[in-house]
Amino acid sequence: MDKNPEESTDSISCLIQELSSLPGIGPKSAQRLTYYLLRAPEGQVRSLADALLSLRQKTKLCTICFNISDTDRCPICCNSKRDARVICIVEQPQDILALEHVGAYHGLYHVLHGAISPTEGVGTEDIRIKELLSRLKNNQIDEVIIGTNPTMEGETTAMYLNKVISPLGIKVTRLARGLPFGTELEYADDLTLTRAMEGRQEF
Amino acid sequence: MDKNPEESTDSISCLIQELSSLPGIGPKSAQRLTYYLLRAPEGQVRSLADALLSLRQKTKLCTICFNISDTDRCPICCNSKRDARVICIVEQPQDILALEHVGAYHGLYHVLHGAISPTEGVGTEDIRIKELLSRLKNNQIDEVIIGTNPTMEGETTAMYLNKVISPLGIKVTRLARGLPFGTELEYADDLTLTRAMEGRQEF
Repeated sequence: MDKNPEESTDSISCLIQELSSLPGIGPKSAQRLTYYLLRAPEGQVRSLADALLSLRQKTKLCTICFNISDTDRCPICCNSKRDARVICIVEQPQDILALEHVGAYHGLYHVLHGAISPTEGVGTEDIRIKELLSRLKNNQIDEVIIGTNPTMEGETTAMYLNKVISPLGIKVTRLARGLPFGTELEYADDLTLTRAMEGRQEF
Repeated sequence: MDKNPEESTDSISCLIQELSSLPGIGPKSAQRLTYYLLRAPEGQVRSLADALLSLRQKTKLCTICFNISDTDRCPICCNSKRDARVICIVEQPQDILALEHVGAYHGLYHVLHGAISPTEGVGTEDIRIKELLSRLKNNQIDEVIIGTNPTMEGETTAMYLNKVISPLGIKVTRLARGLPFGTELEYADDLTLTRAMEGRQEF
């Protein structure tokens, strides 16, 4: 792009640059998307721009579970059909999306907005643990499911959460770790295999 | 996404849907991008939305070469340092971007906005051939480089262009076809190998 600044015009190179700055979109994809949008119906481009603008203007954190929502209380917290005695703790709002997509869970959530990471300077004060504990103390909760990621940070966070929640007399469980569906044992990494062995279940 | 409509809120699912409709962006990427944008600086999201809106409002086709430009005449056609006696014919505006990126060409362009394709019902009348011929007749042109894609449609278009341009007494050349850089002979397809052999050059 540097050799010939005249290669493209302002509006085009401007959008290519904006799109390139997004994660997972390289300069080539940004270019392809831009030329696609040049030919797409004008309404589609406008809807996309509008959706981008509303995203930040309309969304806020749910005051109960810290999910991202257009309302003060997210649709999950507002849904009286959900089991309010079970809370699944996740790192990010998008983890809720993944779990809801499966449709196997009907309790509530709590979004930490991060995980404890000494290397990145994220401590217990930097994620929504304080709010979780006050929520657990002020409500009748039977079970807390720890749904942090099976990573170093997620494990550390899970261990810390178990340490602070157990004394409250609440049952603490953890999403099962093991071999992902569709893979072959041969290609599984050592840590996954170790956990699959440790967590083995009876038929 | 269908099982639990409450999994996400309106603004979020709206943007995910808009992004999913773009080529090369699947539902997972759309989701990842949306949650990225939720955390990105507000200015970045606004710039992206603005860039999308200006893209369609500000751009037009260059009246000379049909490149896409913010001005009536594109910066390449306006540049007096470029060789106005050589025209490279390409299928799409993004092909200009690719060639300019290389920086090895200093003539002008002509964008056909398509290629002849009987199967898709694109005939000689549907792409900018008429405008090309009138441009060739009304200007002093020494050489026309055919830069259509090495596909069935591109080849058909190239043959047709050669047939109609040659009688005007203008030299017609074609971008070399052969083995792409960095590949291994072993993995090249038959057509590429055939062309690499046919087009072999002396050392």
